[in-house]
Amino acid sequence: MTRAYRLAEIAERFGGELLGNPDVFVDQVASLESADSNHISFLTQSRYRRLLAASRAGAFILPYPERDTVKKPRILCDDPYLYFARVSLLFNPPVEVQPGIHPTAVVHPGASISGDAQLAAGCYIGADARIDAGTLIGVGSIIGDKVHIGADTRLYARVTVYHGCQIGQRGLFHAGAVVGSDGFGLARAEGKWLKIPQIGSVRIGDDVEIGANTTIDRGALDDTVIEEGVKLDNQIQVGHNVRIGAHSAIAGCVGIAGSANIGRYCTIGGAAMILGHLSIADYVSISPGTMVIKSINKPGKYTGSFPLDDHQNWLRNAAHLRGLHKMADRISALEKKESSK
Amino acid sequence: MTRAYRLAEIAERFGGELLGNPDVFVDQVASLESADSNHISFLTQSRYRRLLAASRAGAFILPYPERDTVKKPRILCDDPYLYFARVSLLFNPPVEVQPGIHPTAVVHPGASISGDAQLAAGCYIGADARIDAGTLIGVGSIIGDKVHIGADTRLYARVTVYHGCQIGQRGLFHAGAVVGSDGFGLARAEGKWLKIPQIGSVRIGDDVEIGANTTIDRGALDDTVIEEGVKLDNQIQVGHNVRIGAHSAIAGCVGIAGSANIGRYCTIGGAAMILGHLSIADYVSISPGTMVIKSINKPGKYTGSFPLDDHQNWLRNAAHLRGLHKMADRISALEKKESSK
Amino acid sequence: MTRAYRLAEIAERFGGELLGNPDVFVDQVASLESADSNHISFLTQSRYRRLLAASRAGAFILPYPERDTVKKPRILCDDPYLYFARVSLLFNPPVEVQPGIHPTAVVHPGASISGDAQLAAGCYIGADARIDAGTLIGVGSIIGDKVHIGADTRLYARVTVYHGCQIGQRGLFHAGAVVGSDGFGLARAEGKWLKIPQIGSVRIGDDVEIGANTTIDRGALDDTVIEEGVKLDNQIQVGHNVRIGAHSAIAGCVGIAGSANIGRYCTIGGAAMILGHLSIADYVSISPGTMVIKSINKPGKYTGSFPLDDHQNWLRNAAHLRGLHKMADRISALEKKESSK
Repeated sequence: MTRAYRLAEIAERFGGELLGNPDVFVDQVASLESADSNHISFLTQSRYRRLLAASRAGAFILPYPERDTVKKPRILCDDPYLYFARVSLLFNPPVEVQPGIHPTAVVHPGASISGDAQLAAGCYIGADARIDAGTLIGVGSIIGDKVHIGADTRLYARVTVYHGCQIGQRGLFHAGAVVGSDGFGLARAEGKWLKIPQIGSVRIGDDVEIGANTTIDRGALDDTVIEEGVKLDNQIQVGHNVRIGAHSAIAGCVGIAGSANIGRYCTIGGAAMILGHLSIADYVSISPGTMVIKSINKPGKYTGSFPLDDHQNWLRNAAHLRGLHKMADRISALEKKESSK
Repeated sequence: MTRAYRLAEIAERFGGELLGNPDVFVDQVASLESADSNHISFLTQSRYRRLLAASRAGAFILPYPERDTVKKPRILCDDPYLYFARVSLLFNPPVEVQPGIHPTAVVHPGASISGDAQLAAGCYIGADARIDAGTLIGVGSIIGDKVHIGADTRLYARVTVYHGCQIGQRGLFHAGAVVGSDGFGLARAEGKWLKIPQIGSVRIGDDVEIGANTTIDRGALDDTVIEEGVKLDNQIQVGHNVRIGAHSAIAGCVGIAGSANIGRYCTIGGAAMILGHLSIADYVSISPGTMVIKSINKPGKYTGSFPLDDHQNWLRNAAHLRGLHKMADRISALEKKESSK
Repeated sequence: MTRAYRLAEIAERFGGELLGNPDVFVDQVASLESADSNHISFLTQSRYRRLLAASRAGAFILPYPERDTVKKPRILCDDPYLYFARVSLLFNPPVEVQPGIHPTAVVHPGASISGDAQLAAGCYIGADARIDAGTLIGVGSIIGDKVHIGADTRLYARVTVYHGCQIGQRGLFHAGAVVGSDGFGLARAEGKWLKIPQIGSVRIGDDVEIGANTTIDRGALDDTVIEEGVKLDNQIQVGHNVRIGAHSAIAGCVGIAGSANIGRYCTIGGAAMILGHLSIADYVSISPGTMVIKSINKPGKYTGSFPLDDHQNWLRNAAHLRGLHKMADRISALEKKESSK
């Protein structure tokens, strides 16, 4: 459990302008609706202002324009959401690592485990693997031969890292994530498929988060690369030899096909799909559900999803969609007749 | 193995009108094509009637209009599919729980395990977890600290439940399911991403089924909530702070983004995607592959997916689609000229 | 580690025309960019020719038209990609199985394990299961009762096979794959859902590869069937009673709903979705992201995905899309007026 903080201590750490009683103690963050007097809450959008007035929170984090919306103790700042994130991290540090090796862990004698690492129950560490200080290998996680996991990285339960993959520091990997499975490499041989051995690996930089049941394939020849600061949500598929540039964030259910090259600082919405061998520039934003079938060379926001409709209306329009090129021809024909008059 | 039942016993339990020999014994359900004389089969749609005549089943469940289609023993009823479901549940009760703790299970001393629960090989139970009577924690499943799992719930192999999650009674969880992983909460801090601790939990009601490799994130501040009777298929992603209303059924590969609020009695087709912070009313049906990008306030069926086409035709139409607003302008121009004559 | 091969040995094994020094030794394949003098590399598309000239590889596999593009030792052939696949398989045979049972494996006394099979750490084998010679059950994998796994099949870490499923020879299963989970079978009973027991199984042929976190549901009554030579990528969902015909290849994130019948030699692009109870003919190719909502009876390539656009243009067009049938009516009205003049 974390200790309580005086509001003045918080403002001293993170800045902002403190109004009201600086000596109120808070020990946790909470939503406006659920907060109690020992909580600090926050407002990011003025449309939730009615919740602010009704909230039982002991203190608030507010944008400057809301200075006088409540009388309770409050901190004014430029970016309440970021400020809230910092306060929440203060109250809720990452799960503490308890150095030691659980008796049910299976560790290959050739592995190198830092004395400050934790190997939880039922985990497995392969030959010549190296686990650095402050790192947690969660319950039932499986670390292949020759894997290196940097310091202060946490693998929750049941993460699988295949042989030879390299993972940086301060990472966070959720249950069911798979790193280094074979890419989907096949050659046709008289109608049948011949498997192409996947002899590359996966290199993951520092400060990367990988969501539950996300899969990252190893490279066919060279490596699949996830640069530092990348955040991947759940159920994402990353194909072989993909590169994801630093500080890009990708939402759930996205698929990225082999050899796609995603830039830095990109955001990709849920269930979007990126085809293989494409390049996406830095600072590109892809909307949810969008199929990216060609490279994108300029920063900006890109979208391609069928608009929602009631079913009957969709049926009517879908029928016409298959004849859209004929509609275009008919318009051209009408224009031609019109202009020839 | 289940015992055999006389057809008359079945009709007595579940109703309907029995025709033909009431003393025929059946001990299993089967499809019309695969059935043998010890099986009972069923017909739901008249277009499969030709299979009925050829079937070797010993008895049938039929809708009333098919009263005279066959001469074999048969039960007539209003809803043969539901009737078949009840008979199948009679023959195929849920896997039996065998109370006890496998010697390879790792159970934290502070956990509270009912004497009538089963902990299978290699499972892990964290501190202060509580497992109620009649519940199965399957092989390799991982139950975090302070989790509570109600009575008669079955977790098949390799289910992961993170700390603090609450699961109701009579649930069914399939392999690879993850409950309570971190939501995808990030704040931008000078171009980088700052993780927002996910301190909410997941609450799952009674009679909920969760499919293989489905993931349900814990709430950021408040809880993610799955109400009673909800059925989730495989490979579904449920974001943080989502609420899914009672008795809704969601097919495979669906993604539900954070804070979406799905009503009761909804059905969502496979690979549909619901964006965050939306509300969907009760009794809404979403077609497969539909991207829901705004709230839906009225019951009904909603669709939005690109119609299938042969590739060449698709290419032609897709080109025009990007200029659709210009086509609309050209039609307006033609109409204007026409009306000015 | 594999041994080195003289280029002449390779040409002798796999054919083609050898030019340059036949006595150069190579011991691994590599990409043109990463290759060193002990590597053999390859060129499939002339647009990568500039990489060929700069490559440090000791030898190349080239199509006949590139005969004189470089002077280094080289093998000319009809299909350099397939040739490369064969050479890579020579250098990188499948992971070697080391017969034996790890002391932490849990094996039901009634199971039948070949003396030439390997059961890795923490795996579980149920009652009456049968594991044939040369097969690897990887770390943490779970094999249910009465499962049969044929010879020389490899299950990487953490694969789950439910009771009664049948798997052929020379298969390859990746981490997190689930075979035989319950299909999504539900009947409505007064607004609630009644589960339909899933009493079929899964039958998987020889030479099948299943990707990481892919799920294959067991049949409701009859079996789900994956024929020989089928290749499934990661994160695929296969519903109950699906049949996938021999030698079809399916890319990541695809969903196949219940009772769909996919032909032989089909290819399905990433994130495509096949609705239930459809039939797809042999030799059909489905483009990525396509929703297949009706049966396809003829070989060919089929597509249906919304074209990518910049967001503002998409917004303009999407608005018109919902009124497409009205645009069609307006064109018809104009044509009628025109023709009545």
